[in-house]
Formats: sequence, structure tokens, C-alpha cells
Amino acid sequence: MFRQSISRWVKQLSPVQMIFLFYFIAVIVATALLAMPAAYQSGARPPFIDILFTAVSALSVTGLSTLTIADTFSTTGAVLLAVVLQLGGVGVMAIGTFIWMVVGKKIRLRERKLIMADQNQSSFSGIVRLVREILLVILTIEFIGFIVLGTYYLQYFPTAKEAFFQSFFGVISATTNGGFDITGQSLKLFKDDYFVQFINMLLIIFGAIGYPVLIEVKEYLFAGEVKRQTLRFSLFAKVTTLTFLILIVVGALFIMLLDAGGFFAGKSWHETLFYSLFQSITTRSAGLTTMDVSQLSEPNHLFMSILMIIGASPSSAGGGIRTTTFALVVIFIITYARGQRNIRIFNREVHEQDLFKAVTVTLMAIVFVLTATILLSIAEPFGLSQILFEVSSAFGTVGLSLGITDDLSVFSKIVLMILMFIGRIGILTFLFIFTSHKQTGKYHYPKEKMVIG
Amino acid sequence: MFRQSISRWVKQLSPVQMIFLFYFIAVIVATALLAMPAAYQSGARPPFIDILFTAVSALSVTGLSTLTIADTFSTTGAVLLAVVLQLGGVGVMAIGTFIWMVVGKKIRLRERKLIMADQNQSSFSGIVRLVREILLVILTIEFIGFIVLGTYYLQYFPTAKEAFFQSFFGVISATTNGGFDITGQSLKLFKDDYFVQFINMLLIIFGAIGYPVLIEVKEYLFAGEVKRQTLRFSLFAKVTTLTFLILIVVGALFIMLLDAGGFFAGKSWHETLFYSLFQSITTRSAGLTTMDVSQLSEPNHLFMSILMIIGASPSSAGGGIRTTTFALVVIFIITYARGQRNIRIFNREVHEQDLFKAVTVTLMAIVFVLTATILLSIAEPFGLSQILFEVSSAFGTVGLSLGITDDLSVFSKIVLMILMFIGRIGILTFLFIFTSHKQTGKYHYPKEKMVIG
Ligand SMILES: [K+]
Ligand SMILES: [K+]
Repeated sequence: MFRQSISRWVKQLSPVQMIFLFYFIAVIVATALLAMPAAYQSGARPPFIDILFTAVSALSVTGLSTLTIADTFSTTGAVLLAVVLQLGGVGVMAIGTFIWMVVGKKIRLRERKLIMADQNQSSFSGIVRLVREILLVILTIEFIGFIVLGTYYLQYFPTAKEAFFQSFFGVISATTNGGFDITGQSLKLFKDDYFVQFINMLLIIFGAIGYPVLIEVKEYLFAGEVKRQTLRFSLFAKVTTLTFLILIVVGALFIMLLDAGGFFAGKSWHETLFYSLFQSITTRSAGLTTMDVSQLSEPNHLFMSILMIIGASPSSAGGGIRTTTFALVVIFIITYARGQRNIRIFNREVHEQDLFKAVTVTLMAIVFVLTATILLSIAEPFGLSQILFEVSSAFGTVGLSLGITDDLSVFSKIVLMILMFIGRIGILTFLFIFTSHKQTGKYHYPKEKMVIG
Repeated sequence: MFRQSISRWVKQLSPVQMIFLFYFIAVIVATALLAMPAAYQSGARPPFIDILFTAVSALSVTGLSTLTIADTFSTTGAVLLAVVLQLGGVGVMAIGTFIWMVVGKKIRLRERKLIMADQNQSSFSGIVRLVREILLVILTIEFIGFIVLGTYYLQYFPTAKEAFFQSFFGVISATTNGGFDITGQSLKLFKDDYFVQFINMLLIIFGAIGYPVLIEVKEYLFAGEVKRQTLRFSLFAKVTTLTFLILIVVGALFIMLLDAGGFFAGKSWHETLFYSLFQSITTRSAGLTTMDVSQLSEPNHLFMSILMIIGASPSSAGGGIRTTTFALVVIFIITYARGQRNIRIFNREVHEQDLFKAVTVTLMAIVFVLTATILLSIAEPFGLSQILFEVSSAFGTVGLSLGITDDLSVFSKIVLMILMFIGRIGILTFLFIFTSHKQTGKYHYPKEKMVIG
């Protein structure tokens, strides 16, 4: 009865109103959870704005915090934080995929079927089912990670309980790309342990590569020999995965080169490899670190700001303009700079409208980031590169910081919360406020649609 | 004979090759002129890289300099510098308008006739005629300015000769938007003289608003009463002029607001008005100043960097992405964010291809500016906002600086010279390298073409 009446009410809402409603409820719930006195060590309960900031940061799986979790939160608090992270991570994937379904009125049948098994379901039960499926995939990944890391951590921590608790929190923080830590020093403890780093990189990538990609890979892996012959990955999966991997490699290369004479001077090849690779992966979304990023040079901070603004894949736990948007913008520039009109990737023609959306998202992101940077530089005494880094980190829901988060004014915290919200649900969702009822469908040439952000 | 054989050779070149050739010759000539010992005060002859830098800066009417002109150049040197500025200012307008003619194969007949009186002329004599006409318009403006300011300067300088020499150099520097000064303190001397500031603002605007606009206004003013009824300003002239004026007002407003509690605190309303208005106008291209810009706050420096990147009108003495590009990008964002397709301004439909070009130019400008900023921040010890300001100043051929130009390494000087070159001829000219022979002309709907950058 109760569920039916909710279902009826929610059905009246537009998709965008639904997302706002869910997010609003989630912020209230998360703030309420984190406002519980039991969540804090004795005498360490912070002011409301910091609780709200941490709730928004956790829900948007950003990881920026005005508090040192290890010194402030109790064990109960850490568990609650992990719950909010999980809620945020699954929620952000669900919202991304949900948008895909809304756009998906023009998506090929097979892809839609992958996501929403029964098309005749109402959109509310569709969402419930979607969230359940995402949760299942994420929990499976997390459970494997939890067992592997927990067992491995026995050598690091005095008791099995602590080893597995560290693994519990760390795996959720990595897989949801939340980037919070309860060690007080992120993953710097494991800066020489390449196994821990490798597992964390895998978990981060699972969280950041996009739920549709995970689903397509899962279907491929579990398909029978015969069926596998006929399966092909969607254009979206190919573009996002390729862009994702190229960005990791190019990112690592530049991070390494920009500090070749600085942080990386005198480091062995394997230290250099793991530091730069981990930093490249974490900078795009997760925010966990094996080093103190403020040790890197200013050009590197600027470069990393760009990586953070690009962010992770659509329908993933990451933020930013998203990999597909970046890829399409690069394609747009090359295409129109050469005066051409037809765009092909992987032997498929790209829909022009997708290019325009990608460009619009990118230009709006630049406007948002610049505006926030100007606002924070009015309000704060810090240097431009520190502020740009912080702002990019919020927009990309990354959570890296050059250490200024604690000292920000309430005004700047509010600006960052808005950015984390925008970065989380994506600029394209904002566009849907205007476009969802105005689709004209003028196009008469057959092309393959692609999700942008 | 000689002229005919040059004419024949030049005719074989593509427009882009021609522009590069002219620019290359101009750099050699300008460097040779400024390398003459007579150009310098005794014992003040600078190293070659600084002469080259000053030549490139003057030719691109930027005004960035590694030298203090007042302490280094002789009177002869100042005259030579004025000649190079004049060459650069007229050249940049001619190149811009020439590109307009090349694009203009699709431009309405009347507009083309305005620029190139006889279409049957060869392109070489067309250019010669164009340069002559531009020179005439500019010299007329400069001559009036020279007489007015020179007479007025009699109260400031001990001899009539010095008053008119200051007026001579100052008027050329303002009208060509060169921004060099021989006073050693730009226009700070006239910070309380609103008449001098007003005349300088007018001259700067004449140089920055675009030659096609000047020509259309001239035709309108000199047309008979009857003919005037039938004249209408082109879409291009309306868009560029409106954008130009809006940017001046909005720019002044923000410059004022961002330092309301700083530089402008305690200033009277007329001081505030003139400081902010002059700064807004000069930041978009000219680079002359009535104040020390390093006294403004960091948020203001960031905002002014954006103004510098936007720059002046196409086919003007200014650089940057240009006003029309900026206007079309704003229109693009609004249009595609709302999911619409048809764009109208002033009751005319805008050509889609123009929007794409504007967006491509803007995105490439962002790539260039970011790349140069990263390169300079690798090479230099200065802060990010100082470097971004310097780089934006070079790309916008503005010439404002927070005082780091003298201390730059040779590497950074070369980067800035390349940026000044790109900013001068415009990113769109680069695009023509690829597009000039690939125009497909697929469009079958009637729209009005517009010049972008
Ligand atoms: K994060
Ligand atoms: K200038």
C-alpha cells in the first residue's frame, strides 16, 4: 500500500525532479547519520557546516573533508561513513545509468535490455531493479576485495579484527571512489607495497570505468561459447574504455615527466612506475594517495587539475566532464578544424548532436570551474594554483587537496558543495532540465547514439 | 617589371602561405630596424633575443617588452618603434580583412564591394589597394588624434616639439593598440586627466572595433540622405559592435566590483568610473594603463586574463579569440543546452558552421593558453596567476604584465613570441591551412555568413 502510493507519486515527477528529490533525501539522511554523537570520538564533534560538508562529500564520493577522519570519527562513525559512501557510489552509478535509460529512448534495443531487463516495468520499479543490480555487482567486487586485502593486511595490523576493518573501509572507499581514509595518511602506509596498490588500482578502475561497461563485460564473460561469437561491445563501451586507458597512460607519463627532476629524482624505475601510475588513476576520480601531492611541482598541480576536470567514465562513481565528453570534444576539434563534417570512430558514424552536447558540457564546466575559482580566490588568501586544484577536485569529485580544505570559509565550503553536487550528477543532467521535453528528433540519417556525461 | 614578377610569384601562393610570407618578411625588417645602433641610448643596446622579442611584440601590436623603452631607446629608436607598430597595426587589420575576403566567396555582394572595390582585380593588387585604404582610414584617425592631443599636451611638456612627439608616439601606440610607451609609466601621468583618457579610449576603440565596422560607419556617414535610407549595417557589424560594447561595460563593472574593497576603496565616483572603464577597454587589447595593474587583486587578475583571451574584434588591431567568436560561443552554449537547433540574432539565422568554428577556435585557444601556462610554470619561478596573466596578455596581444616579462628565460620568451604570432593572425587562419581547399558547400539553406576570428 505505502509502496504503491509512493510509486504513484514518484511516477508524476520528471526524471530530473526525481533525481533532485533522491539527492535531497540522501543529503538529509547522510547528514542525520553523521550528526549522531556516537559517530565521533569523545569531545570531537565538529560544527554543523563540517558535518554537512562531509555528508555531501561522502554522498558525491568526493572525499574532500574539513575534518581528519582518523582523529574525529569513532569506529561507529567510520562504519556510518562507509554506509554513506556506499549509498553515494551506488546512487551515482544508478543516476548515471538512469539518465542513460532516459536518453535511451533512441538507444539500440540490446543495450537497453542489458540495463533494464523488462521494459514494461514502470520507471520506479525499473529504478529499484537497477539499483539492486548495481548493488549486486559492486558488492561482489567489494566482497572479493575485502577478503583478499583483509587476509593480506594480517601482516600489517595487530589483530584480525583491525586488519579486516581496515580492509572493509578501504575497499569501500576505493571501489566507490570515495577516497576517504581512516588511517590518517591515505595509502602512504603502503607506498612500497605494490600488491596493495595494485588491488586498490583495480578497485578504483572498477568503480570509475562505468557501470554499463561492467555489465557488458559481465555478459561477455558469462556468455556461452556460441553466443559469445555474436556479441559485440557497444560503441559507448569501446570509446569510454579506450579513452579511460589512454588517459591513465598519458596521465602517468606527464605526471612523471613534470616532476622528473623533482619528486621522481633518484627514485627507482618501479617506484617511479607505481607512484605515477597510481597517481594518474587516483587523480581522475578516487583521491586516495600513496604520496603527499603537495610535494609535486606547480606545473604538475595544474596538469592534475585538468585530469580531475576530465574525470571518470559516465555512469560511474567518478565525476568531471567524463571520458566520453573529453573524447568527443577532441574529435570535435579535429573534425571542425579540418572543415570536415562526418565523424567516424570504430567504423560507426557519431551523432552530431552528441558532439554538440559534449562541447556544451565542456564549455559549461570551464565556466563553472572558473567562476568557482574566482569566488574562492576572493574569499580565501591561498594562491591560484591551490584554489584551482581544490575547485577541480570538487568538480571532479576526486578529493585531492593541497591542504587548504580545513581552513576554508563557510562561503567557500558552500561553493565546493555545489560543485560536488554538479560534478556528481553531471552537467548533462542539468541540460536535461531544459531538453527532456523538447527533443525534436529532426534527424533522418541513421547513426549510433552515445552517452556523453 | 619587377613589380609584375613579384605579383606573378605571389599569385601562385595560397592565402595562408602569403600571410606567413608577409609576416616572416615583416619580422626580419622590424628586427633589422630595431637592431640599428642609432635606435638606442648610448651603451644601452640589448641582446638579440630582446630585440627580436620587441620586434615581434611591436609587429603583433602586443606591447609586452623585456626592455623599458624610455630607458633604452633613443628618439630615433622610438620613431622606428612607432613605424613598426604602424606596420603591425595596419598589417593585422589587412590580414584580418583579407581573410574575410577569402571566406567572402560566400559573403553578400555588397559587403565584398565595400572592401574590395573592383572584384576583377588580381588578389595581389587587391591586397595593395586594401592596405592603402586601411592606411588612409587609420592615418586620418591618427592625424586628428595627433593634433588634438599634441595641442593639449602643450600644458604638460616644456617644448612644443616634445608635446607633439609624445602625442605622435602615444597616438600611434593607442590607435594601433600597440600599448608601448615612451614615458616609462604608460598613461599613469594622466590618471587625473579625463580628457587625455577619453581621447585615448576613443583611439583604442577605433583600433580594436574592426576595420569592416569602420568602413561601414564611414559609408553610412558619407552617404547622401536618400541612399542612407536604404543602407543597413551587416549582421557582422552589429554583432561585433554590440558584443564589444557589452564586454566593455561588463568588464568595467567586474573590475570595479572585484576590487571594490581594495584598489577602488575610498576613490571618488569619477575616479572609479574612469579607472575601471579605461582598464576594461585597455585589457581587451591595447595594454596602455592609467594604474599599476599589480595593485589589483588576484581574482581581478584572473578575470582580466579572461578578458584578454576574449580580446578585440576580428579584422582589428586586437588579438584573442575575438568578440564574434565569444558571442557565438555564448549563443552555442545557450542553444545546445536548451536542445534547440535554429539560431537567430537580429532576425537573421546564424550559419551552423560559424558556430562550430567559433567553438573550435575557443577550445583551441584554451589548449594553447593552458599549454603555454604549463610550459612557463615549468621554466619560471613565478606564481600561476602571474604566468597565466602574462600568457593571456601575449595571446590577446594586450601587453599588460604583472612585471615578470624582464625576468623570463629565453625559452619562455620564445613561447610568448609564438603566442603573440598566433594571437595576431588568429587561430582561424591556422584552420584555413586545413580548410581552404576542402570547402564542401553542402548547405542548401539560406543563411548569413559571419566572420569569426
Ligand atoms: K573521490
Ligand atoms: K597591445
